[in-house]
Amino acid sequence: MNLKDKIRNIEGFPKEGIGFKDITTVLKDKDAFKYSIDELKKMSSEVEFDTILGPEARGFLVGAPLAYATNKAFVPVRKPGKLPAETISYEYDLEYGTDKLEIHKDAINKGDKVIIVDDLLATGGTVLSTIKMVEELGGEVVGIYFLMELTFLNGRKHLEGYNIKSIIEY
Amino acid sequence: MNLKDKIRNIEGFPKEGIGFKDITTVLKDKDAFKYSIDELKKMSSEVEFDTILGPEARGFLVGAPLAYATNKAFVPVRKPGKLPAETISYEYDLEYGTDKLEIHKDAINKGDKVIIVDDLLATGGTVLSTIKMVEELGGEVVGIYFLMELTFLNGRKHLEGYNIKSIIEY
Repeated sequence: MNLKDKIRNIEGFPKEGIGFKDITTVLKDKDAFKYSIDELKKMSSEVEFDTILGPEARGFLVGAPLAYATNKAFVPVRKPGKLPAETISYEYDLEYGTDKLEIHKDAINKGDKVIIVDDLLATGGTVLSTIKMVEELGGEVVGIYFLMELTFLNGRKHLEGYNIKSIIEY
Repeated sequence: MNLKDKIRNIEGFPKEGIGFKDITTVLKDKDAFKYSIDELKKMSSEVEFDTILGPEARGFLVGAPLAYATNKAFVPVRKPGKLPAETISYEYDLEYGTDKLEIHKDAINKGDKVIIVDDLLATGGTVLSTIKMVEELGGEVVGIYFLMELTFLNGRKHLEGYNIKSIIEY
């Protein structure tokens, strides 16, 4: 299956000049959705891991099904104020301003091997923050998998030394 | 499995006087997570349906894995401004003020049979909005399934006539 045929391109969202890759058309196509999760499962089968981390909110759409498909634990990475127990956080730079992500402090144990899954690798800020939090808690990131990657944004340059794969590239 | 043993109760979140039912401890326990999705799959096997709707963000954590497990389509229900294509929206009352949800206009076709899945039935506002949007687009809600239900909040009284089930009740 060519997943690119299933992704809808929307010009001018969220603002003028940006072409948004809409994955809701993948989710709405049951075969394309199943194919996507099965491809992520194949990619992740190359490593041993205990836990899948997925960033809010679209990372939940791929990470949680992958956790079910691989019978692993899932840890949500969330915006501030959403997680009810004790958290650690990491702030990262955006084009204008900063953004902050959190995970529960007890979500990762020392020595845990984790993978990070998201729909899209763009500039890499979200993933880099997630890596920092995992490593602060003593976990090891053994794989990072995406549905798609915007190669022209060079997100990989912030993620050197990590094992990164995407199903499709733009 | 008694799923109640896996849900963490956190007093005073998001504000004093409220006991928050934290499902991250379910997600983090791979067997409890698998059990939860498999129970939702069993519940939903009683009806014929094409599509699963799940509200942002925790509804993604149960709805997307269920879509994978049942090989159905998934449609995200989102907060305003998150969906890139043409949407319809529904505003509903909260204790203080209102809240608004959106789905893509082309996410539901006339005659589609859908189920709605979320982690929690509380007052029922989120689900009622989702039903209204589905019905406005000509779809039919044939089942509504939750991980847990706070029966003392009486959410079912807003949802009379619908087929509602929860794995556990408080």
